[in-house]
Amino acid sequence: MRHFPISDPSNKGTKRDSGCAHVHFVGAGPGDPELLTLRAHRLIGAADVVIHDRLVTQEILDLTRPDALLIDVGKTGFGPSWDQGDINDLLVTYGAQARVVRLKSGDPAVFGRLDEEVAALDSAGVAYDVTPGITAASAAVAGLGVSLTQRGRNAGLRIVTGHDAKGFAEQDWRDLARPGAVAAIYMGKRAARFLTGRLMMHGATADTPVSVVENVSRSDERIISSDLIGLADALEDVTGPAVLLLGIAPRAGLPAALREAL
Amino acid sequence: MRHFPISDPSNKGTKRDSGCAHVHFVGAGPGDPELLTLRAHRLIGAADVVIHDRLVTQEILDLTRPDALLIDVGKTGFGPSWDQGDINDLLVTYGAQARVVRLKSGDPAVFGRLDEEVAALDSAGVAYDVTPGITAASAAVAGLGVSLTQRGRNAGLRIVTGHDAKGFAEQDWRDLARPGAVAAIYMGKRAARFLTGRLMMHGATADTPVSVVENVSRSDERIISSDLIGLADALEDVTGPAVLLLGIAPRAGLPAALREAL
Repeated sequence: MRHFPISDPSNKGTKRDSGCAHVHFVGAGPGDPELLTLRAHRLIGAADVVIHDRLVTQEILDLTRPDALLIDVGKTGFGPSWDQGDINDLLVTYGAQARVVRLKSGDPAVFGRLDEEVAALDSAGVAYDVTPGITAASAAVAGLGVSLTQRGRNAGLRIVTGHDAKGFAEQDWRDLARPGAVAAIYMGKRAARFLTGRLMMHGATADTPVSVVENVSRSDERIISSDLIGLADALEDVTGPAVLLLGIAPRAGLPAALREAL
Repeated sequence: MRHFPISDPSNKGTKRDSGCAHVHFVGAGPGDPELLTLRAHRLIGAADVVIHDRLVTQEILDLTRPDALLIDVGKTGFGPSWDQGDINDLLVTYGAQARVVRLKSGDPAVFGRLDEEVAALDSAGVAYDVTPGITAASAAVAGLGVSLTQRGRNAGLRIVTGHDAKGFAEQDWRDLARPGAVAAIYMGKRAARFLTGRLMMHGATADTPVSVVENVSRSDERIISSDLIGLADALEDVTGPAVLLLGIAPRAGLPAALREAL
């Protein structure tokens, strides 16, 4: 497996069968290769070119063909390293002449900026399709032995971002602060004090449970059981990507039952 | 593959290795076997006993071992056919002596009533784990060529049920009625007129887009593009399971680009 700088794909020297030219947007799931879908696994293994985000794990990239061109267009933290326009151009260029997998961590439809890239392909007349992936909320709660929804507690859940283009994201705080409300908060680490403040201002109690799941589904996954008032402190030594599960506590007596090898 | 009535598992005549005894809660995803995770595929193929919901497709059940015991504990529509207590008993009985897969459509943590079953296993000291699945919202929107979240439109999405234990489920309608709000509504068919009424009462406009995706990910998947005022009529000939995507319209010019074979 090689990582290439961007270059004109014609430089690769292999003639592309344009009949296979296509962009497959593929959800890579949260990190564990076993949480790839069968379709994702098949498409990744067949791709000529894989354009991936930084959070896609090495174990998943290892599933690509030895001669596949891998391009990392990921961002590190909040610093943009690739312009969205450049990523779009890359997809259009390669997508017109090769089997391209655009590999996004989690599910491409959830905070994946799919729409900009699809629009670019549509304008250029390049065919595409979308393969959904396991989103982090589903995988994070699987390690806790509880549901995201529960009869009598919540008839719905939210998946929200802690951070959007304008900074810390505003939400319907009144609703999120209700007893029994459940939300999976993505990219919430830096926003933790903001979230706690907003939620408590709208009536959430200090002891509202919040579970933090770091490195979801990976071998170094870590579950931290916190409450709202202690959230920012609980996050202090969390260095990997993390999902915050507001309103969710791990099941009591969990480790013995759940931590058995699969 | 055989479907058995419930019986004492000792009647099967094969001695179980109790070292493998375990209940694997497994998300079957929306229906297409290719949307199973690799782990789900492996666990389904290894199971001695598979206890499944009605919505799990035949193609997925065909992946079980020829000698596996399959038990359908599904409900049809709103009529309970199996008591939850009986399902729990079944899990405890088989889980203590066999490799059991408890196969739930979609993701077990989303409207899957996981908690009751986990509690029963905990009480009985039976080991379990949870494998997440692709939830219907992710798979439904994949066919539309758009995201569930979009910069500048929504910093979060909701997954809600149209129907809970008490009847049509109440939600934070004011927030759902906001322009740009996005919700995936599960089990929403019968609740359609109720939903439309509640949303419009709280300020949603009649032309709010709603996409209906019937038989998500299956060969007979059908996408119906509607608006809020026309939703109940649009659902009239929908007979399969459907997800309603409030606030989501299919991408313009979609079919040509997206409907190519994967």
